[in-house]
Amino acid sequence: MAKKFNTLDVAGTPVYVGQGVFGELQEHLSSKLATKEVIFLLADENTLEHCYPQLIAMVPELEKANKIIIKPGEENKTLATCEKLWNQMAVEGANRQSLLINLGGGVICDLGGFAASVFHRGMPYINIPTSLMAMIDASLGGKTGVDLYSLKNQIGLFSKPAGVYVWPGFLTTLPHRQMLSGFAEMMKHALIGDAGFWKKLTKIPMAVVTNWEDHILTAIKIKSKIVNLDPNEKGIRRQLNFGHTIGHAFETYSLRNDASPLTHGEAVAMGMICEAYISYRTLGFNHMERDEVVKNILLNFSHYKIPSIAIDELVEITHYDKKNRKGRLMMTLIRNIGDAVDGQQCELALVRESLFRYIDFSRHVPRE
Amino acid sequence: MAKKFNTLDVAGTPVYVGQGVFGELQEHLSSKLATKEVIFLLADENTLEHCYPQLIAMVPELEKANKIIIKPGEENKTLATCEKLWNQMAVEGANRQSLLINLGGGVICDLGGFAASVFHRGMPYINIPTSLMAMIDASLGGKTGVDLYSLKNQIGLFSKPAGVYVWPGFLTTLPHRQMLSGFAEMMKHALIGDAGFWKKLTKIPMAVVTNWEDHILTAIKIKSKIVNLDPNEKGIRRQLNFGHTIGHAFETYSLRNDASPLTHGEAVAMGMICEAYISYRTLGFNHMERDEVVKNILLNFSHYKIPSIAIDELVEITHYDKKNRKGRLMMTLIRNIGDAVDGQQCELALVRESLFRYIDFSRHVPRE
Repeated sequence: MAKKFNTLDVAGTPVYVGQGVFGELQEHLSSKLATKEVIFLLADENTLEHCYPQLIAMVPELEKANKIIIKPGEENKTLATCEKLWNQMAVEGANRQSLLINLGGGVICDLGGFAASVFHRGMPYINIPTSLMAMIDASLGGKTGVDLYSLKNQIGLFSKPAGVYVWPGFLTTLPHRQMLSGFAEMMKHALIGDAGFWKKLTKIPMAVVTNWEDHILTAIKIKSKIVNLDPNEKGIRRQLNFGHTIGHAFETYSLRNDASPLTHGEAVAMGMICEAYISYRTLGFNHMERDEVVKNILLNFSHYKIPSIAIDELVEITHYDKKNRKGRLMMTLIRNIGDAVDGQQCELALVRESLFRYIDFSRHVPRE
Repeated sequence: MAKKFNTLDVAGTPVYVGQGVFGELQEHLSSKLATKEVIFLLADENTLEHCYPQLIAMVPELEKANKIIIKPGEENKTLATCEKLWNQMAVEGANRQSLLINLGGGVICDLGGFAASVFHRGMPYINIPTSLMAMIDASLGGKTGVDLYSLKNQIGLFSKPAGVYVWPGFLTTLPHRQMLSGFAEMMKHALIGDAGFWKKLTKIPMAVVTNWEDHILTAIKIKSKIVNLDPNEKGIRRQLNFGHTIGHAFETYSLRNDASPLTHGEAVAMGMICEAYISYRTLGFNHMERDEVVKNILLNFSHYKIPSIAIDELVEITHYDKKNRKGRLMMTLIRNIGDAVDGQQCELALVRESLFRYIDFSRHVPRE
């Protein structure tokens, strides 16, 4: 296999991006295989079907790994699923010299990273992200965790993967909605850190984009720049939460109420509309740029319909978000496209107002 | 309150020892109280009854803390108990600026430390150890964790407490068996690191010791010296596991089979007898010193009777211990009293032999 890939450093973790990343992975594995350490491969039913055969074709030595297969979806990102992993690891005699390989999207990377990091007080793990969202966000930066009841990422820790292997080839296996979910995070990366990237992303609809590898590299560089300044999220890293405070509320609400819940990215897209509005109201974010943000999001994402009566529930969920301080919300807002500022206080009344405006927007934009 | 205490540094955590430690705690709390952060106090039903009133008398500002009360005992050091904590923390709006105070023995410190460290990816916590064992061991050094089924400390992480406040006054509340449990760890500290301390500890039976504060300081200094060299247990810190490989097996076995299970220290005492025997067999540990160790342990600890038929189960449990590497046990052994060596390979056959010898010892020593 040709050694054709880029190497980036994200918070001390080597991140390999490109067609040739699995040659690098084989080198990493050879030492583990030589000492006969136990290797686990975590996948969900979808990545087992669509990605695992491709991986094995390129890295045949992984066929011998202990497979742990879980059900797909955010609703399985739970402590109960972790217990299944821990049980299987214990039975197979895993220890701190073993290795867990996470093959999947955000749920697999978040949950697998957490499960490995607290098994015997820290077993190494590797991420092989298979979704666009995981490639540019969830697999990077060492945030791991699971949900508690319907509250997102309540339980977790910062823990670096030993390596991240981004092979854009997996994107061909991805359903349209999952591509969109990643595209929302890409838009967020652009909105908080790179106005030029925003221009590129909004020039054509996502469906006709072809240069994914370039987009992925740019997006990872934006994330990397922020995370390297603040790996444990004491300050500037919070910029990456733009759209996520209210986005998480949409996601939680949808998990509770919808038969086919919003994806993470769809929820973040909605959250960005609300938080762009709050940026306009409190930080002087220009109303023309605000409308441009709303328009371009709704060009790709169909409008998620919420009844007015749901707004109390959404505000209540937002209130429990972990970025709260003493009853006030802390939020990342944007001053301009490409220029974010973290740690902005926001009253719940303004969250409520933004949700009502979100309902309004649906009247003025084309629907799918 | 007079500022009468010693301050030690254990792996970057300030550890305060003495009568005046709660004056220091009040200073630490004042900044949290000033900014109205949520403070939680974790206790079990025993420490709530016996230690909480004493603490409140000295630190009245803690009366307003959110109390989380759990059932006592190793059998409650579980993920299910953690979920109870996390649920209460979420309901009370806890976040990364909140604080958890652990008031209790090893179970409270281990479980509370883990629960705080993975709540919102890391909430600060403080240990106020109330048992001798926790004062000299469990509260120090940042090892946190819970059990998985009956396997000890399978799930956890290294995470530093913000401070440890050791007030020897709590020892007056401790039942005899709990004092013994801590005394076993004290003996272990002496056996691995300080022959002079071993002489002091074995001069008189534990029941007539009075200078606990001195003993505690010496024991913490031994632990501190080792932990500061190797906070994440890559090498020398494993010395602290002397007696624990087989000790954990006794503990797990007893939890499964006994109505009134062994304490941690009682199990470690038994484990030290077996591992002193293995040290004699493989490392040339002098047989006179070995007999001295056995005699002094059995002077304080009644002989735990196991039938020969239990030995298979004990070996099987040992096999699952997390210090295993590729089917072989890794163990800390002693060359001399006060001189340990970690990372010694041990075949399961020798574990079995040591257990049979353990049964033999009961014939030659006085019983309680």
